[in-house]
Amino acid sequence: MQSACAAVLKRFIRHGRLRVHWPDGQAQDFAGPPGSGPEAAVRLHDARTVRGLVLNPTLSVGESYMDGGLEPLGCPIYDVLDVLMTNLMANGDGHPAARFGAAVGWARRRLDQFNPAGRARRNVAHHYDLNGRLYSLFLDRDRQYSCAYFPRGDETLEAAQAAKKRHIAAKLCLDRPDLSVLDIGCGWGGMALTLARDFGAKVLGITLSVEQLNEARARAAAEGLQERVRFELRDYRAVNERFDRIVSVGMFEHVGVDHYRAFFETMHRCLNPDGVALLHAIGRNEQPGSTNPWLTKYIFPGGYCPAMSEVLAVSERSGLLLTDIEILRLHYAETLRHWRRRFAANRDTIASLYDERFCRMFEFYLAGSEISFRRENMMVFQIQLAHRQEAVPITRDYIAAVENAVPRDRRVSA
Amino acid sequence: MQSACAAVLKRFIRHGRLRVHWPDGQAQDFAGPPGSGPEAAVRLHDARTVRGLVLNPTLSVGESYMDGGLEPLGCPIYDVLDVLMTNLMANGDGHPAARFGAAVGWARRRLDQFNPAGRARRNVAHHYDLNGRLYSLFLDRDRQYSCAYFPRGDETLEAAQAAKKRHIAAKLCLDRPDLSVLDIGCGWGGMALTLARDFGAKVLGITLSVEQLNEARARAAAEGLQERVRFELRDYRAVNERFDRIVSVGMFEHVGVDHYRAFFETMHRCLNPDGVALLHAIGRNEQPGSTNPWLTKYIFPGGYCPAMSEVLAVSERSGLLLTDIEILRLHYAETLRHWRRRFAANRDTIASLYDERFCRMFEFYLAGSEISFRRENMMVFQIQLAHRQEAVPITRDYIAAVENAVPRDRRVSA
Repeated sequence: MQSACAAVLKRFIRHGRLRVHWPDGQAQDFAGPPGSGPEAAVRLHDARTVRGLVLNPTLSVGESYMDGGLEPLGCPIYDVLDVLMTNLMANGDGHPAARFGAAVGWARRRLDQFNPAGRARRNVAHHYDLNGRLYSLFLDRDRQYSCAYFPRGDETLEAAQAAKKRHIAAKLCLDRPDLSVLDIGCGWGGMALTLARDFGAKVLGITLSVEQLNEARARAAAEGLQERVRFELRDYRAVNERFDRIVSVGMFEHVGVDHYRAFFETMHRCLNPDGVALLHAIGRNEQPGSTNPWLTKYIFPGGYCPAMSEVLAVSERSGLLLTDIEILRLHYAETLRHWRRRFAANRDTIASLYDERFCRMFEFYLAGSEISFRRENMMVFQIQLAHRQEAVPITRDYIAAVENAVPRDRRVSA
Repeated sequence: MQSACAAVLKRFIRHGRLRVHWPDGQAQDFAGPPGSGPEAAVRLHDARTVRGLVLNPTLSVGESYMDGGLEPLGCPIYDVLDVLMTNLMANGDGHPAARFGAAVGWARRRLDQFNPAGRARRNVAHHYDLNGRLYSLFLDRDRQYSCAYFPRGDETLEAAQAAKKRHIAAKLCLDRPDLSVLDIGCGWGGMALTLARDFGAKVLGITLSVEQLNEARARAAAEGLQERVRFELRDYRAVNERFDRIVSVGMFEHVGVDHYRAFFETMHRCLNPDGVALLHAIGRNEQPGSTNPWLTKYIFPGGYCPAMSEVLAVSERSGLLLTDIEILRLHYAETLRHWRRRFAANRDTIASLYDERFCRMFEFYLAGSEISFRRENMMVFQIQLAHRQEAVPITRDYIAAVENAVPRDRRVSA
């Protein structure tokens, strides 16, 4: 298998350099011209690892790293993935379709994304019911587990997450107090609490994670905001009340294509006639595809990041009007860089909560995600929707106006 | 047929009021509760008109108005269409799918939109090779025949068209002089001349209309801009040069769904690696459909305004990255209102250039279009595309910054 693996790498690596130390101790370079891309080195410890990389690379790169069969030498796993992704983007047919996970069949995608309420709850528990302390060791203080917003570029993670919440609040047009807001997939409650505290909204936040629910309720109580913010363990499909505003940040990735219609029907049904909704989610800046199988198996069962055309084909049928779409690109790469650094700084503590394999799994997930956003094929979209076009101002200038109008003492200093 | 027509109207009109004067001299009201919507009155002069309205309403309303068989009484045709559209939006299945032209079969849409180069040229000539003087009698001085931009809401048409060009120029990131720009569907050259004069670009504008080409070239010569702006009679599929920027305003409506792939392939092929492209076109803020048959027959043969999902499904496959999407809504209703008023003010002159029937045809087109934008189902999208995400700034704030930085003396005063 070693010669087969070498043949694949020789054809594949044309930019930068990957030095491979084979199980027999020999080292071999696979490289493009000097200076043509990132460089990294790995040791492959055994024949089983080599075989896995040849037969099922999309799953095996991650699994071998977790198990220790694939070991980065003198560099983090990020650098190894950077070499691989750079070559995937540059090779192929000159088209971004050929990349990480593209080998995975289309047929898998529907089955993987079949998320009725019971399975949706188990899928969520898989990731979000991890020990709550884990998230405090790599996220910002507010536990925003979604793309931050870096208008200047050098903000701290805390400032960038605060900017993200302001940016979304501005798009929600919270122009008077006591507007009712539904937050679908409220996480640990940071967005809901901010909308209540800083923008005078009355919020219902729903989640399927018991860990998140308990933490969110504790935070509301600690801030004395229980009267303005309720948190409930509820599936989005079970909401029947109506709200002035609906927001959903980083939850749509878990919905699954077959359930998009139910998601938009919920938004259509629960949004008041003059309401405004904002959907913030990860998408692929390319044609529809399927989720990388390693990511489905270890991190987000049932998860999928759609192409925009898949989302809009459903939203157009919902009867809601599109009123704006923003594409955030490098913001998530920056966010993930911050998370990766914080994770590394707290690695010993995290290893003591879990184990070495868990740490490697999480590192692979953070590094792979960052590379995907930096190398272009992934992005975040913010889709604004309404029943009536008069629900939002005629130009987009109000967004910056609201962002700049937030009292200085409420801003987190950079 | 009169009783059949009355039965249809009785079921259909539930908001506002339509008073119908039948050929026999009898008048009959079809109405919802008082104050429930707009009101209008029509006279139907003969049995042929009544029959057409029952058997083929989407084509016959416009044709009867053109032929004089349907005559608005004491109000413009706009008011009659307002009553009809208000009821179409409110009735149906409570969903914007049921509306003006929705009865038209899906099957027609591909045939109608089959636009190879020869037919594309004939289709363009049908509308744009009309006597050049006509357009000077209802458009602004710069002959911008596309949606203007009304950030304040009370701008003159001249100021709003200047604001539209600035808005698009800002999104093109013309951050240094001498950038090469391809303008696909350049019309009478207003956008190309502005980009050269005010933003230092070197522009190639292409059109399929001989009238537009001659006028655009004459304007470039009159302004002494021949060195910076070239105009050519060329199909977009025949462009092979590369450009730093590509802009296309109000031309995509003529492309046809089967040719979207060729359009985006042209953009992909002709855009430099660090380039930015901006596509501005009319779309439907609802699911895909087909063009109203009256509009296809009399105004825009081969024309179609797509749903966003139809456009993005193709652009995602092109290899270009989406970097922003803005949805302009009431801006076009305002633009059309200005055009309709100018047309009315110059009606005698236009009738002497053409005839009464032409005037009615054009009035029906302008009024029907304005209603479509005001009653929500139509919009304009501005899609920004690039090969690389670094081609545009990380936030959208640069757009307002560029708009506000234009020297005051270059602004058209409101």
